[in-house]
Amino acid sequence: MKYKKIEGSIAAAKGFSASAVHVGIKKSKLDVAIIYSEVPAVAAGVVTKNKLKAAPVLVTKKHLKDGMLQAIVVNSGNANACTGSAGLTHAKDMAILTAQGLHISPQQVAVASTGVIGVPLPMDKITKGIDLCAKNISTHDPEDAALAILTTDTYPKKIAIEIKLSGKTVKIGGIAKGSGMIHPDMATMLGFITTDAAIEKEELKKLLRQVNDNSFNMISVDAETSTNDMLIIMANGMANNPTITSRDHPDWVVFKDALQWVATYLAKEIARDGEGASKFIEIQVTGAASEKQARLAARAISCSPLVKTAMYGADANWGRIACVVGYSGAQFKLEKLKIKIGQHVLYANDAPQEFDEAVLKKLLQGKTITLKVDLGVGHYSADAWGCDLTHDYVNINASYRS
Amino acid sequence: MKYKKIEGSIAAAKGFSASAVHVGIKKSKLDVAIIYSEVPAVAAGVVTKNKLKAAPVLVTKKHLKDGMLQAIVVNSGNANACTGSAGLTHAKDMAILTAQGLHISPQQVAVASTGVIGVPLPMDKITKGIDLCAKNISTHDPEDAALAILTTDTYPKKIAIEIKLSGKTVKIGGIAKGSGMIHPDMATMLGFITTDAAIEKEELKKLLRQVNDNSFNMISVDAETSTNDMLIIMANGMANNPTITSRDHPDWVVFKDALQWVATYLAKEIARDGEGASKFIEIQVTGAASEKQARLAARAISCSPLVKTAMYGADANWGRIACVVGYSGAQFKLEKLKIKIGQHVLYANDAPQEFDEAVLKKLLQGKTITLKVDLGVGHYSADAWGCDLTHDYVNINASYRS
Repeated sequence: MKYKKIEGSIAAAKGFSASAVHVGIKKSKLDVAIIYSEVPAVAAGVVTKNKLKAAPVLVTKKHLKDGMLQAIVVNSGNANACTGSAGLTHAKDMAILTAQGLHISPQQVAVASTGVIGVPLPMDKITKGIDLCAKNISTHDPEDAALAILTTDTYPKKIAIEIKLSGKTVKIGGIAKGSGMIHPDMATMLGFITTDAAIEKEELKKLLRQVNDNSFNMISVDAETSTNDMLIIMANGMANNPTITSRDHPDWVVFKDALQWVATYLAKEIARDGEGASKFIEIQVTGAASEKQARLAARAISCSPLVKTAMYGADANWGRIACVVGYSGAQFKLEKLKIKIGQHVLYANDAPQEFDEAVLKKLLQGKTITLKVDLGVGHYSADAWGCDLTHDYVNINASYRS
Repeated sequence: MKYKKIEGSIAAAKGFSASAVHVGIKKSKLDVAIIYSEVPAVAAGVVTKNKLKAAPVLVTKKHLKDGMLQAIVVNSGNANACTGSAGLTHAKDMAILTAQGLHISPQQVAVASTGVIGVPLPMDKITKGIDLCAKNISTHDPEDAALAILTTDTYPKKIAIEIKLSGKTVKIGGIAKGSGMIHPDMATMLGFITTDAAIEKEELKKLLRQVNDNSFNMISVDAETSTNDMLIIMANGMANNPTITSRDHPDWVVFKDALQWVATYLAKEIARDGEGASKFIEIQVTGAASEKQARLAARAISCSPLVKTAMYGADANWGRIACVVGYSGAQFKLEKLKIKIGQHVLYANDAPQEFDEAVLKKLLQGKTITLKVDLGVGHYSADAWGCDLTHDYVNINASYRS
């Protein structure tokens, strides 16, 4: 591994802590959490492009405007979306309650919710939860926050790494949740990243967008862009590294690479644990005319229900991949188009290539599958990540509310 | 019913006949068919916008250029797509063999294929099939053609109606197939329509595009645009009605309405029999700022795996419909947005509306579900048709090739 993995996930970086409780929004699991920095942190965020933004998304967008945050409050089990003006008041109240508990300003609090759409938030439970989280903020196991944000996820997504910037130890930690309604558009499901790096507001904002485009924005579970997607980063500067001020700063590339690695790690974890998924699918597109086209093709393949069901059935039905390339909108040269599953070339030189069905079957029965497509027109590439479409996806979603 | 339903489907109109045989491309079902007009017919077609067009699509496009056809040859069980230059030769040979059997010109023959992608066409079987079909063209049960074009469809889609144009009896008949990889883009899966109406080439071409946009282009089974989609109409003029020459012709509207009805009937049949479908879903979008936006929203809802699984599970999870509206790209006013399932209002006045879960559950357990969305910004509307996403869709597509 390129980076030194450390404990503590979202609270690994200096000055960060987190806590979580169960108050009954979900039946029996942790459902309210707070992430806190003991000093105000430079912050940036990207939120869903869905026009129907949930109330917490609207509140968080507003609170992110000055580029500073000191806490994030989040609940699972209820999305507080399509809940009208009452929902907006509830989201604002979540920020106010958190601010009161932590003795900070409400404008310094980001609010996030995830769960069912269109059901009023149970504010009695939320109030109790925020109160408890704020009280226990420094004593609580910080990794519980990774559990508290889950919905149909089967395991928590968390990571923390350590890097050196100008000789100073800097930590970056993050948690995320995904599972269903996952097809981020310039944003993500819920993803929270903390770091003690010192970096200027504007640089952090730019970096987050760039990093997000190559991580969360390249995963899809079911091609559904949620109302609640949100990725937030807080950088509190407590590592005391020389502040990263621009692209020309000597530490810029090191920090960017580390941040990209953390975001990609979390994004891939979401794809791996997609609703009902039994397999993780990595799509590598090369030979594209532009980065945009590479992304277009890679994402289209990751979204195809026919490719996803074929992978579920361990069926090397590469024709479905070709079909997706055809309707993806990406340019390609048919005579140079190449389709591979793992190392096996299935289509090349404008003709199907012979392959050993038994070998492919065995390969496709594995837990991780790599699909490679060379479009044969340029030198741009992109990776996307997804999962198979299984009976369990149908099971889970035919009865989500009940 | 608005129109008089008659027997004969694709061969109902005067001068048309059809035949079909089983030659072993599919295991045990009819797999090669010919549709024939005893005189050359004015013809028009729309084909898939997938950049990876199958060989028969390329041949048919070419043969449609002069706006005249006398026969259509079609096979199921093999799509002849991604089969390189050999595939193109095979598709051309299908036209030549059909022309020889029927004593017409190869340029007068449209070629269509449907089935697995990337497998060479078994030309020995195809040759035998075309030979038999041509020989029996006038004696065969014409409705067999509707069976011969099926893949994973569970029943044949066919219709024929009778109308009066300037006192003359005119017949319109059609067959179609669908099931999987169904998300037509300015074209369709396989749809063939015949009529004995007399109409000018250019008018027929314009009419077909218009009719197709409101029928086949508004259905989706799995958001996959196939490599082989094709809708062809032949009008042989044998009804002897005064030739329809323009929009101003007195019979134009009557003929257009009838053609629209036939195309919509066939398109809805495809949605109803979508791969693994247990329910037919009709989506009615109103209050849109433009027809394009109405179509955008309606189609997005028909494609959503989360809406489709909720319908499968008879779960009135209207929040998922709201979410789709939000990411569909269509404009809406949140305070005027209205979401209904059947006659039950679930969202209005920017707030969730109370509803009786038991009543909705019962409604959603029916075979036909109507979802209504008013975007609250204009007066345009569009209908789309789809089906639920079921365990059987996964079953069928996890093992399509085997």
